[in-house]
Amino acid sequence: MDFIGKILQYASFGESHAEGIGGIISGYPSGIDIDIAFLESELKRRQGGSKFATPRKEPDSFSLLSGIFEGVSTGCSIGFFIKNENARSKDYSNIKDIFRPSHADFTYFQKYGIRDYRGGGRSSARESVARVLAGGLFKLLLKQFNIEIKSGIYAVGTKISKIDSIESFDFNHAKNSQIFALDKALEQEQKEEILKAKKEHNSIGASAIVIATGVMAGLGEPLGYKIDSAIASGLMGLNGVKGVEVGAGARSARMLGSQNNDFIDSKAGFLSNNSGGILGGISNGDTLVFKVHFKPTPSIFLEQKSININHEDVLVNLQGRHDPCIGVRGSVVAESIMAFYLADLLLLNASAKISNLKKIYGIKD
Amino acid sequence: MDFIGKILQYASFGESHAEGIGGIISGYPSGIDIDIAFLESELKRRQGGSKFATPRKEPDSFSLLSGIFEGVSTGCSIGFFIKNENARSKDYSNIKDIFRPSHADFTYFQKYGIRDYRGGGRSSARESVARVLAGGLFKLLLKQFNIEIKSGIYAVGTKISKIDSIESFDFNHAKNSQIFALDKALEQEQKEEILKAKKEHNSIGASAIVIATGVMAGLGEPLGYKIDSAIASGLMGLNGVKGVEVGAGARSARMLGSQNNDFIDSKAGFLSNNSGGILGGISNGDTLVFKVHFKPTPSIFLEQKSININHEDVLVNLQGRHDPCIGVRGSVVAESIMAFYLADLLLLNASAKISNLKKIYGIKD
Amino acid sequence: MDFIGKILQYASFGESHAEGIGGIISGYPSGIDIDIAFLESELKRRQGGSKFATPRKEPDSFSLLSGIFEGVSTGCSIGFFIKNENARSKDYSNIKDIFRPSHADFTYFQKYGIRDYRGGGRSSARESVARVLAGGLFKLLLKQFNIEIKSGIYAVGTKISKIDSIESFDFNHAKNSQIFALDKALEQEQKEEILKAKKEHNSIGASAIVIATGVMAGLGEPLGYKIDSAIASGLMGLNGVKGVEVGAGARSARMLGSQNNDFIDSKAGFLSNNSGGILGGISNGDTLVFKVHFKPTPSIFLEQKSININHEDVLVNLQGRHDPCIGVRGSVVAESIMAFYLADLLLLNASAKISNLKKIYGIKD
Amino acid sequence: MDFIGKILQYASFGESHAEGIGGIISGYPSGIDIDIAFLESELKRRQGGSKFATPRKEPDSFSLLSGIFEGVSTGCSIGFFIKNENARSKDYSNIKDIFRPSHADFTYFQKYGIRDYRGGGRSSARESVARVLAGGLFKLLLKQFNIEIKSGIYAVGTKISKIDSIESFDFNHAKNSQIFALDKALEQEQKEEILKAKKEHNSIGASAIVIATGVMAGLGEPLGYKIDSAIASGLMGLNGVKGVEVGAGARSARMLGSQNNDFIDSKAGFLSNNSGGILGGISNGDTLVFKVHFKPTPSIFLEQKSININHEDVLVNLQGRHDPCIGVRGSVVAESIMAFYLADLLLLNASAKISNLKKIYGIKD
Repeated sequence: MDFIGKILQYASFGESHAEGIGGIISGYPSGIDIDIAFLESELKRRQGGSKFATPRKEPDSFSLLSGIFEGVSTGCSIGFFIKNENARSKDYSNIKDIFRPSHADFTYFQKYGIRDYRGGGRSSARESVARVLAGGLFKLLLKQFNIEIKSGIYAVGTKISKIDSIESFDFNHAKNSQIFALDKALEQEQKEEILKAKKEHNSIGASAIVIATGVMAGLGEPLGYKIDSAIASGLMGLNGVKGVEVGAGARSARMLGSQNNDFIDSKAGFLSNNSGGILGGISNGDTLVFKVHFKPTPSIFLEQKSININHEDVLVNLQGRHDPCIGVRGSVVAESIMAFYLADLLLLNASAKISNLKKIYGIKD
Repeated sequence: MDFIGKILQYASFGESHAEGIGGIISGYPSGIDIDIAFLESELKRRQGGSKFATPRKEPDSFSLLSGIFEGVSTGCSIGFFIKNENARSKDYSNIKDIFRPSHADFTYFQKYGIRDYRGGGRSSARESVARVLAGGLFKLLLKQFNIEIKSGIYAVGTKISKIDSIESFDFNHAKNSQIFALDKALEQEQKEEILKAKKEHNSIGASAIVIATGVMAGLGEPLGYKIDSAIASGLMGLNGVKGVEVGAGARSARMLGSQNNDFIDSKAGFLSNNSGGILGGISNGDTLVFKVHFKPTPSIFLEQKSININHEDVLVNLQGRHDPCIGVRGSVVAESIMAFYLADLLLLNASAKISNLKKIYGIKD
Repeated sequence: MDFIGKILQYASFGESHAEGIGGIISGYPSGIDIDIAFLESELKRRQGGSKFATPRKEPDSFSLLSGIFEGVSTGCSIGFFIKNENARSKDYSNIKDIFRPSHADFTYFQKYGIRDYRGGGRSSARESVARVLAGGLFKLLLKQFNIEIKSGIYAVGTKISKIDSIESFDFNHAKNSQIFALDKALEQEQKEEILKAKKEHNSIGASAIVIATGVMAGLGEPLGYKIDSAIASGLMGLNGVKGVEVGAGARSARMLGSQNNDFIDSKAGFLSNNSGGILGGISNGDTLVFKVHFKPTPSIFLEQKSININHEDVLVNLQGRHDPCIGVRGSVVAESIMAFYLADLLLLNASAKISNLKKIYGIKD
Repeated sequence: MDFIGKILQYASFGESHAEGIGGIISGYPSGIDIDIAFLESELKRRQGGSKFATPRKEPDSFSLLSGIFEGVSTGCSIGFFIKNENARSKDYSNIKDIFRPSHADFTYFQKYGIRDYRGGGRSSARESVARVLAGGLFKLLLKQFNIEIKSGIYAVGTKISKIDSIESFDFNHAKNSQIFALDKALEQEQKEEILKAKKEHNSIGASAIVIATGVMAGLGEPLGYKIDSAIASGLMGLNGVKGVEVGAGARSARMLGSQNNDFIDSKAGFLSNNSGGILGGISNGDTLVFKVHFKPTPSIFLEQKSININHEDVLVNLQGRHDPCIGVRGSVVAESIMAFYLADLLLLNASAKISNLKKIYGIKD
């Protein structure tokens, strides 16, 4: 069940310490110029590489193996592969038989009866390198329609930005910030919070905002594949995510209808965006706004109580290389996920009205 | 795209003011006793019918049209139908051409170019009657494995329960509360909050908790159909939901790893449940815990600024019958959604290991 | 797994002797006029009702329960229901525990451990009434693009038409023939063949041709959902079908490349149609041609050796009402199946090229 | 839409003259020993490499990139890749703008507006190398249940074997025959037929039989994913296939019910197998029997009338390397396709009965 999507389909494979990570994209329309430099820059953004991210450095050079001819998408499946070059499986030999607390180690073993201890195996965040590369391709598709996706971090642990309107966040600043901080004024404090956790062999949670501008009204299929449920499924499936909100989110549950409703003006459009750009599971033409809450990295370097595969009590002392705050790099992956579902829904929506189809097939209405 | 599920599949149809609401369930295993009284009691729970819910009263008598023979499921598709008997479309004639603020009216028209003004058409919460009936069938399936799903309301507007452990909520009380209140001490205040909003022709938001006990470890498929992303997709797709959290949820993002990690003891099991019973998208054997945040009902009876289908400014004055707090009854629907995904994942997990399959087909390992 | 289709999705439910047969269509574009009289005429074609078909007479009056507003499709799911009014389950009481040879009785029991003996239960050809009603809706969609589907019988038992070009078959004659005969000259002999089998309490096989004219080039998705494999999957899944051919079909396997290849002329187009309008799984713009081979009805009224559910030898003597030649009415159902897959592929193909999508969303290329 | 399967899912990518061919398998159960030598032998069978196949020689060395740990399947997605090493794109430069008659060149261009002329691009039979490797993995899964798949050629052009019972075909001989001939007595004539076509720069059609022994009763889902329709979809989607038959196939359409019905004896089982092991779309426990008809290779080296991408008349004179009879190697690919669908249906069937699921989850019935 690694396969997702309806028209635009995506599947990936690969473990953290196996040969590499790869994937297939099917249903990608023909005729799109594939901007390799842009894809490289997307992978670079995910890498982190600063002291706020994992010390594991991967060149992340990728191969696009099919579906592109003379620089243009052909409509056929795009296969891709990214080598793992800097895996250090021996770091994991001392936890070969041990379950790390709050880690997928435990559940994968329960489900499959197999213990692939090397770096988290399939459940490692290393998989997100495939999502980000694919996400770059999806963004190139969305760019054809002037849809843009941006993200950033607004909270690290208890250092939460007080900015309460999307317009006031600085997404451009976030793009160049080492921790993708949306609130310049809070950035230094948030950085220190991460470094403090790191120094104490601990980790820390964080919250991100992901938005999409330029989204036309009408994306989202009633009931089975609503735009909010599709994007939420992807975001909640991201490593470490424990909460997803749309628009005013949990705050909506605190409000009265008269406070929460977004009134409409024929000239100014929506007078507020508590809905986060989505009504009844369908985009309303306003900016899409999602919040994503990341737990702290479960792999910390403090002694923890756990059990081993023989169900005996053990004290876990980890080695290996881990992000002190997975939320930071997670925000970039969240963009890729939003790009995927937006692109799939954009394709699906093409056949919502018979008049759309007549345009394509050159039939007079 | 009204079709969901992998092995166990579900689709529904019907509008609020059309003949009725129906659906199909495919992949429901044979040999399950269908307890009709239980299904009736589930529908009754959803009806509300108190002063805290819509004044629209529907008998909700349902027909199970196939897939059951002599009281037992046959393995073939189960079709069902529930008549609409108390629709009053004329209530809507004055908003025929008007978009209600924060309502799906607007987006359905944008998407399909059709204005089915009668009671919200397909986007109405009336559809949830199908989900709850189907949910009853899914619960009968889960009951075979001693899995139980429960829910309740812990916050109405700003009246938020201070109870902070799942064990301290009173799910039995909630079951019989008119507003499904989990915190007996706060119930009266929460009721007053709803009635106050109602009296002021307004509406109010609310937050629910949905849990599943008895869930075996191993449910959830890596990456494409994780248990958290599957359930989140369903919950976020529920009318009015703007936020979904798992376990400690957004609170995880405020914590250090050492605070958030659930340590394990060989006898006591997990020493906490910040993970909400899910690690790496797979159930860990602990109780599943989801929080769901509902916005206030968008249909309020106060004058609101909006536009009509000709893009002209209008002032909206609604009639019709609406819940003052959709969250209340929404919590019951949320149970059905969780039941669906748990059941589908339970079926899928049957083929995770070759040894499982050998048991079924009588092959010696 | 009763659910089929990618964008346009279809599911059905119902048993031969339960309350009725119904279904859901999701993904049907908005804005199509629903011609009820046409749907009625399609159901009438399927009924047979002559001495060449089953004596069971069903009025087949149907309800369209949703997805249509003021005579036009809304884009939302279409639910429909057709009552069973003339079921005679007592005809089946003497075979309650017995497996009819070459009938799905046996395999359903093996699979589900349940014996719904009434009229074949879910495996009955009665289900095809849903497909034909849905097929009518799909044809209305295709009609928007001037695509037309036709069919007829060219062989009954060993009475095989010698006509060897599609153009020489008389599809208009077939439409009004009691046995949908394509070859007027052979019709009388074929009818006699059926009546002879019927008189001898036996049944007889038949072969049909189904074609689609006006199909644009480009329908069919590479590898996973080719147009030939999609349509073949539907046709082979039709009750009693044991063979499906495309274009020259099995005859292609007898030929040299120089004989089988369809040469192309810039003015005349394809100089032959051995490919049946399909190359590499994608339509080439020529007429689609499929042949379908139906086995004789397994339910015959001659004594047959079989076993019962206790695995004891029995002699089967059937009662009940059955078509002497299922192929005849099967050809009408085959049209519906082709209509479904063509419509779904037409919708899918809308997003094959980025230029198509730009047309819909009003983006300058 | 390159993605197929329900629980067991498969997708591939790659063009004939791009870097290679790869794929992903998801849903493959954990705990299966991966026999590499067997996989190599399967690829070798497909290669042909004799004078009856294409002169293009590929080493077909493959990489299994994930989903296997210490020689055993982990339950996680299996990614694989096979390099193209012997592509000669320049052979195709003279047909850069020309459509080969009866070739997918034409339809891919119509669909996507892109002309990837190098060796047929995505539509090349080179893709089948991925299917055969994956097919080997599926066969290893089926072997756990003693299910075996075999195939062979019974007709080359008009040289058709007169053997009319499956038992009389020599599948062991076929395995080692250069043309996979099932009828030893006819093999020499069939070989000459191929060589004659080759010498005359022509090609020739062929017909294969594919069987599966040891298949338990119960595989196949009613209506939407019947075993015959699933396998037929795969076989009809194979390059060059124009006809698929099950059991007695088209011959059933010539028979009376009394001739075609397979009677059952409590000791001997089915007294005939006209049904090809399938009743009502579900396996009945007898041997599965499919016939597959392959057209002659469209790429022949005789002058042919066609058009170019500017819609001008041209005479085509091909170069390149092609099988004189694609049916021969196609039979091996057909096995892989059958293996895929059998495996997926075997997994699906695990949840047909609640009692099956109880066995897995250790619940007392």
